[in-house]
Amino acid sequence: MTSAENLDQLCINTIRFLAVDAVEKAKSGHPGTPLGAAPMAYVLWDLFLRHNPNNPNWFNRDRFILSAGHASALLYSLLHLYGYDLPIDELKRFRQWGSKTPGHPEYGLAPGVEATTGPLGQGFAMGVGMAIAERFLAGYFNRPGLPIIDHHTYAIVSDGDLMEGVSSEAASLAGTLKLNKLIYLYDDNHISIEGETDLAFTEAVEGRFEAYGWRVLWVSDGNDLAAIEEAIRVAHAEQERPSIIIIRTHIGYASPKQDTAEAHGEPLGPEAVSATKEALNWPLEPTFYVPDTALAHFRRALKRGAQLEDEWNSQLERYRLDYPEMAELLDRVIAGVLPPSWDAELPSFHPDQGPKATREASGKAMNALAKHLSTFIGGSADLAPSTKTLLIGYGDFGFDEACGHNIHFGVREHAMGGVVNGMTLHGGVMAYGATFLTFSDYMRPAIRLAALMRIHSIFVFTHDSIALGEDGPTHQPVEHLMSLRAIPGLTLIRPADANEAVEAWRLAVQYRDGPIALALTRQKIPVLDPGRYPIAQGVSKGAYVLAKAEGGRPDIIIIATGSEVHLALAAQEALERNNIHTEVISMPSWELFNAQPEDYRAELLPPDVPKLAVEAGVTQGWREYVGEDGDVIGINRFGASAPGAIVYDKLGYNVDHVVQRAEALVRKKR
Amino acid sequence: MTSAENLDQLCINTIRFLAVDAVEKAKSGHPGTPLGAAPMAYVLWDLFLRHNPNNPNWFNRDRFILSAGHASALLYSLLHLYGYDLPIDELKRFRQWGSKTPGHPEYGLAPGVEATTGPLGQGFAMGVGMAIAERFLAGYFNRPGLPIIDHHTYAIVSDGDLMEGVSSEAASLAGTLKLNKLIYLYDDNHISIEGETDLAFTEAVEGRFEAYGWRVLWVSDGNDLAAIEEAIRVAHAEQERPSIIIIRTHIGYASPKQDTAEAHGEPLGPEAVSATKEALNWPLEPTFYVPDTALAHFRRALKRGAQLEDEWNSQLERYRLDYPEMAELLDRVIAGVLPPSWDAELPSFHPDQGPKATREASGKAMNALAKHLSTFIGGSADLAPSTKTLLIGYGDFGFDEACGHNIHFGVREHAMGGVVNGMTLHGGVMAYGATFLTFSDYMRPAIRLAALMRIHSIFVFTHDSIALGEDGPTHQPVEHLMSLRAIPGLTLIRPADANEAVEAWRLAVQYRDGPIALALTRQKIPVLDPGRYPIAQGVSKGAYVLAKAEGGRPDIIIIATGSEVHLALAAQEALERNNIHTEVISMPSWELFNAQPEDYRAELLPPDVPKLAVEAGVTQGWREYVGEDGDVIGINRFGASAPGAIVYDKLGYNVDHVVQRAEALVRKKR
Repeated sequence: MTSAENLDQLCINTIRFLAVDAVEKAKSGHPGTPLGAAPMAYVLWDLFLRHNPNNPNWFNRDRFILSAGHASALLYSLLHLYGYDLPIDELKRFRQWGSKTPGHPEYGLAPGVEATTGPLGQGFAMGVGMAIAERFLAGYFNRPGLPIIDHHTYAIVSDGDLMEGVSSEAASLAGTLKLNKLIYLYDDNHISIEGETDLAFTEAVEGRFEAYGWRVLWVSDGNDLAAIEEAIRVAHAEQERPSIIIIRTHIGYASPKQDTAEAHGEPLGPEAVSATKEALNWPLEPTFYVPDTALAHFRRALKRGAQLEDEWNSQLERYRLDYPEMAELLDRVIAGVLPPSWDAELPSFHPDQGPKATREASGKAMNALAKHLSTFIGGSADLAPSTKTLLIGYGDFGFDEACGHNIHFGVREHAMGGVVNGMTLHGGVMAYGATFLTFSDYMRPAIRLAALMRIHSIFVFTHDSIALGEDGPTHQPVEHLMSLRAIPGLTLIRPADANEAVEAWRLAVQYRDGPIALALTRQKIPVLDPGRYPIAQGVSKGAYVLAKAEGGRPDIIIIATGSEVHLALAAQEALERNNIHTEVISMPSWELFNAQPEDYRAELLPPDVPKLAVEAGVTQGWREYVGEDGDVIGINRFGASAPGAIVYDKLGYNVDHVVQRAEALVRKKR
Repeated sequence: MTSAENLDQLCINTIRFLAVDAVEKAKSGHPGTPLGAAPMAYVLWDLFLRHNPNNPNWFNRDRFILSAGHASALLYSLLHLYGYDLPIDELKRFRQWGSKTPGHPEYGLAPGVEATTGPLGQGFAMGVGMAIAERFLAGYFNRPGLPIIDHHTYAIVSDGDLMEGVSSEAASLAGTLKLNKLIYLYDDNHISIEGETDLAFTEAVEGRFEAYGWRVLWVSDGNDLAAIEEAIRVAHAEQERPSIIIIRTHIGYASPKQDTAEAHGEPLGPEAVSATKEALNWPLEPTFYVPDTALAHFRRALKRGAQLEDEWNSQLERYRLDYPEMAELLDRVIAGVLPPSWDAELPSFHPDQGPKATREASGKAMNALAKHLSTFIGGSADLAPSTKTLLIGYGDFGFDEACGHNIHFGVREHAMGGVVNGMTLHGGVMAYGATFLTFSDYMRPAIRLAALMRIHSIFVFTHDSIALGEDGPTHQPVEHLMSLRAIPGLTLIRPADANEAVEAWRLAVQYRDGPIALALTRQKIPVLDPGRYPIAQGVSKGAYVLAKAEGGRPDIIIIATGSEVHLALAAQEALERNNIHTEVISMPSWELFNAQPEDYRAELLPPDVPKLAVEAGVTQGWREYVGEDGDVIGINRFGASAPGAIVYDKLGYNVDHVVQRAEALVRKKR
């Protein structure tokens, strides 16, 4: 072995044993993958990854995702060793309360963690999103000789990642889009939790990825650094295909548990740790040992990183001189700052224009926003004509049209969710994804992850109730409003008309406290007169008095969301005719309402007035707002296939039924 | 054209125009696929499908799934024409309230609909489940010369099906398991809703399926009946691979909208209908026209079907003579009747045995059931050692071991859900699937479909709270109990100890009113003394008084589920010491409780006693039970990575906190 080779092995073993010791100290974690995958991670980080550990937010850095998030200790070792602000003490506090080193990498905790991973396949899909954002921004901003946006997206992926459907979807999309700057290293260790991967996974991964349009490369020995290096070089040279490098590794390498499922998800145990250290000529003590020569080598990344960023800054200065407006725009999109008149063209609707579906108004709002938000980008899971989310005149994103704003995700809701998250994490763009509300179920793990990461992903869900009609119960959401509200940190807005829909978009664009989901109607509904109703101020509060009771003091309050607000208004008319003073509250967002001051909430929902909630979905949860003596008109069953108006009526969404339930409440109170 | 060819064309056009007219009359639906796919459906149904329209439940029938459920009119046409009990009037009431012909096929409405489809990819995965059930039952029951169970599973699948990740998962699993009696016809029409499939779907489907281990066959012209026939014959001869036949079709065939996205999801319109009928020499009037010669040809299926079933019955009689016990068993599993002493070995646990995780108790219960339920079959999404769902000694299901009970689903939760549904629909087996509760999100569309179909799928979800500890928030369910409860028709049971877990299984096995989900702990929790607590009677009621207050009249009622019941009991002790009389209610299932008589519910939760709910999940929905003056200890945030006991404590799950909140309620009341 040359001394360089010795140094490499020293570094790799340093990575390995930091991870092993962290797992051992925590008495919890996954030591097997760090042992097997350390060489590929080392080659990638040492020779290729363009990053600046002193500035994890350097915009043009390569992105690296550990999609096999259970191997988090590997990532923490890398981050510590390469000089990120992650002290060794944090590795010693692996998986402990309040540490920056949780069981699976969490975006926002340790610097350098580009995405929260762990739920398998998500990292794979988010990487595709990052590569799309890079391609788009490069297409948008780069000028001859000034490739301001120019980086790769890498991930280490596992057999579990590849088995998940979301990665199949994302891989097929990446192939279609020819994302050649996407390079995934597949840690092919032949072991999953239940045993040999052959038990459940005999497919030819290479054939599958070739079919997707990927370049497939092989490294037959995961410890062969030169082969790994060569494969990554070949991948770099690839001009039209994403690359997957299948690297045969051994889980729990050099440990007594090598190549067994036992090496996967539990600490090796003191004896096996000793045996492994001995096998690799590593001192048993101290634990968390980092040889000085290794550390010195790793930390060269700091200087190199600073240089890389300096060079980029110099280039950016030239860019700034030649293209001052573009540079200013770039600054703004990187910072996520909205341009001055971003909402100047947001439409307003008037009842005279006739009824309008909120999906329709949403589409108009989006197109108005696109004129000012230069990097507003997204698409639908093959439902754009129905979700009305096409940005008209803004092109289709693709290999030949990197500046296109409309992404055709295909019938791949789950990958869409992951890709939108990845684009959002990348930064520089405002990203959205759209499908029918029912199919939010298909992408739920990605929505959850967006909420956990508190990122600004925007999800547009149309066809938001049984009123969609003929497509029937498979397509009619019933439990979805509530199951989305159950996700901590997700803000759901269900506008009551075209104008509330515009306000919902105004909020969504400005929101910075997590993902937003919009629930929009398929069917046309009346437009509320913005002159008569306090819509603009109201929506941002989550709930507001839309129509006061006659005389101001209500006998009953009807709380409604979305399309049901019009039913509430019609019922109000009928009730007032019967001399029952009725107030109507529009409640487009529980989350926004819950964030209001106690005063506002108590004033809006006074305890002594009976309350009736009306929403075309399950009743679960509404008791919080209507109280013990209130009532809820909801749907605790699946819908039915028939014209929308008929289904709506048959399931109790008609004026008579609302009036009857309201009157019963008032009678009970009296 | 020969007269036979003429007859074929007449029949195909009959299928086509029944579908077109149904869509047209409904003014809603998808005419394009029926026009393009009618020939393949005709060849399959006319020459291959072994079914008996007069007995849609004949057990050994071939299964046919229209995975492209939006083309429902095609299926309804077939069912009507081949003589199922689906009168033409039902086609005329396509997509209307109360009809048997909803927008997407719904299991349980029209006879012959084998599965509810529409959400793409689900039919694909359910077909895999049916083929698994067939393989298993054949392996179990067949004897030399008596292939009692011997049928194919067919589906028509679309590009949308193939784009969905769930079908990728299911396809890879089917390839691994070498399900050679699975034959899918891929309606390759190059059009999706947003336009040409090339927009989003350029992958080489053939290469992908070959990589999965499928036999791939091609038919270059979807109107070439002989080629379709030949391809199906080749697929039949295949001994080790599932088959996909890629059939190039033209959406909206022969209509002015042929090969356009407009033909996909809306009626052709009167003019285009006329043009299409003219192009295919079809009379414009009457609509819903069925030529007598065509009908006579179709209805030969009745005689043929009766013959097929007769032959099978004869064979079954021989089987009954030679293998009377097996025949009796077969009768029973087909009828879904439990054997006499099916629960004889269900364990009971005693506190002396020490604390026990409910996943552990569940595993013991499952293994006790396996001894008596001969066709109890299922598995986990690569988490069997953690979910404890392995049936020990019952073999791994696979090509070489058709009788194995343990299915290794791989890291494919979504396909697992679909496959479990498919097995359940097939009948003859009791099927389960297992993963962590958090990952129920990955399979949510399949769970929803099970609920919509009201079938007896059993889902086992372990690691049911933040108490799972170090794996952190990506793996810690918080919103999942509630979001599962939001699904109409799904029954969720979260047992409080090992004995409640056994009771949960006892209920799950007997339940016949829809799918069941169990939520089980990772961590050990105390065992409740079955001598002291009325567990056996209690669980079936969904909620019951576990521990009465001293003196019988409580100052406060604590309602808890799962592991939190022990916290409630500990708090009870402390509160009683402070002279606050406390009752503890264990509430393993909202759904079972809600189904109890009003009396029972009112008695259990009297309005005048303050109530505190304790559950390690979001508070949403609990207000229904604790009332306006009650309180809920829940988690409206994500969890955290740390040892389980610490996370549990830090997020408020400790005796002091429960006592404090309980006392506050009592004070408020006083």
